[in-house]
Amino acid sequence: MSTKNRIRLVVQYDGTDFCGWAAQSGQRTVQSTLKEAVRQISDDVNEIIGASRTDAGAHACGQVCHFDTANPIPEPNWVRALNDLLPGDIAVQDSKRVPQSFHSRFCATWRFYRYRFAIGTRQPLRSRYAHTLWKPLDLEAMSSAAQTLVGRHDFWSFSEETPAEANTVRELQSVRVRSVRDEIWLDIVGNAFIRGMMRRIAGGLMEVGQGTRPIQDFPDLLHTERREGIFRPIVLPARGLCLMNVRYGRHPKDFRENSTNEDE
Amino acid sequence: MSTKNRIRLVVQYDGTDFCGWAAQSGQRTVQSTLKEAVRQISDDVNEIIGASRTDAGAHACGQVCHFDTANPIPEPNWVRALNDLLPGDIAVQDSKRVPQSFHSRFCATWRFYRYRFAIGTRQPLRSRYAHTLWKPLDLEAMSSAAQTLVGRHDFWSFSEETPAEANTVRELQSVRVRSVRDEIWLDIVGNAFIRGMMRRIAGGLMEVGQGTRPIQDFPDLLHTERREGIFRPIVLPARGLCLMNVRYGRHPKDFRENSTNEDE
Repeated sequence: MSTKNRIRLVVQYDGTDFCGWAAQSGQRTVQSTLKEAVRQISDDVNEIIGASRTDAGAHACGQVCHFDTANPIPEPNWVRALNDLLPGDIAVQDSKRVPQSFHSRFCATWRFYRYRFAIGTRQPLRSRYAHTLWKPLDLEAMSSAAQTLVGRHDFWSFSEETPAEANTVRELQSVRVRSVRDEIWLDIVGNAFIRGMMRRIAGGLMEVGQGTRPIQDFPDLLHTERREGIFRPIVLPARGLCLMNVRYGRHPKDFRENSTNEDE
Repeated sequence: MSTKNRIRLVVQYDGTDFCGWAAQSGQRTVQSTLKEAVRQISDDVNEIIGASRTDAGAHACGQVCHFDTANPIPEPNWVRALNDLLPGDIAVQDSKRVPQSFHSRFCATWRFYRYRFAIGTRQPLRSRYAHTLWKPLDLEAMSSAAQTLVGRHDFWSFSEETPAEANTVRELQSVRVRSVRDEIWLDIVGNAFIRGMMRRIAGGLMEVGQGTRPIQDFPDLLHTERREGIFRPIVLPARGLCLMNVRYGRHPKDFRENSTNEDE
């Protein structure tokens, strides 16, 4: 009989100096940094499970994770206790006790990622968080190509070195490309993402926006039977990528209503 | 007879990893990093003069500087040439040939600085550029105190270890405190700033906003004859400080109209 409580955390991090979320021996990762801080408070914590395994260099506004502990400290106190221990590039935003049936990864129904393109001269005050391009992109062409991605498709062409027999079918709820000041933001909500998928979608749409890939290529990229001879989209740098939030429950609301931070 | 051209640059930098603007032997500074890049293109450049000597850790959107060179490369080409050589935390935004009568420091009439307070839980995605406070500040009290600063005053109380005989009179054109989402921004336009002045003004206004310093203290801080026994405002961390731009000419326009970037 377990006497442990399950604690759910919402975590924000600047991914620049992390080798991604997932613990790897000898590397500075978000998971291991977080685990070290949690274990300074409760050494009965063995594992911290995250909703998304973000790439090296990618950021997160609202990564979700959970762990089990018998420590009786009140649930909201985890925020300040952990933030006092964590380094400057990672901080807990929220903590909550949840039932044992909650699992940050397996119960997640939707993940919302943003990719930011900054157009013009490189600006150091934002270039940690955006991919800078010297020339403008064709927003209309990008939007047209983006719409073909919505729904349930085989995203094999947007994955890295995936064996042909792997299941690369994923469902995207919405794909939105828009201009925000002198930036272009690509917002995608999907049930799950294959490794590198988000950065290859951003790459493919950038190619369309630059006129180096025809829009008509996009439907072909999604058809399993047309894999032969497909020219895969480029993978863009992780610095432009941010996991905005993770949603649970069967009926996802519009993600744009979820947080005022998202429109900054 | 000089055959050199004077080139004016507008420079943006993330000050986190710089020991400020001014060159100091053995330190990584903005001035020395920039000079090294310029000299890779034209080794006849001896000095780069900046409008403001920003503090270690402080940022700049629009620092202005100039140098002289006989190099005939077209004036706009300096931007890309230098940005190819400069590290990620500094980039030239604009380059222009100016008359020899232009001097980035002595001709500057107004400097616009911003100090950002982030209210709430520490957020790593912005905490490089803002000073985070757990509790809200009293915006109205801060604004009242801020208004006393406008005009020509002796800012001795806002300076660091300044000898009593030094000239610490400066003129502030506008001081504005406002709420922007979950942040508070302090925007100050002044003819010049003593070392540490902007961060002590931010500190004094924070103390007022936290209720630990009465608003009535502010007029006293500005009166030379009341210096005795004055409790100086705290100096806040440089990370929240950014030199937004520098203005030249006798009739400064409203700084808020100067750049769309400023309201982000």
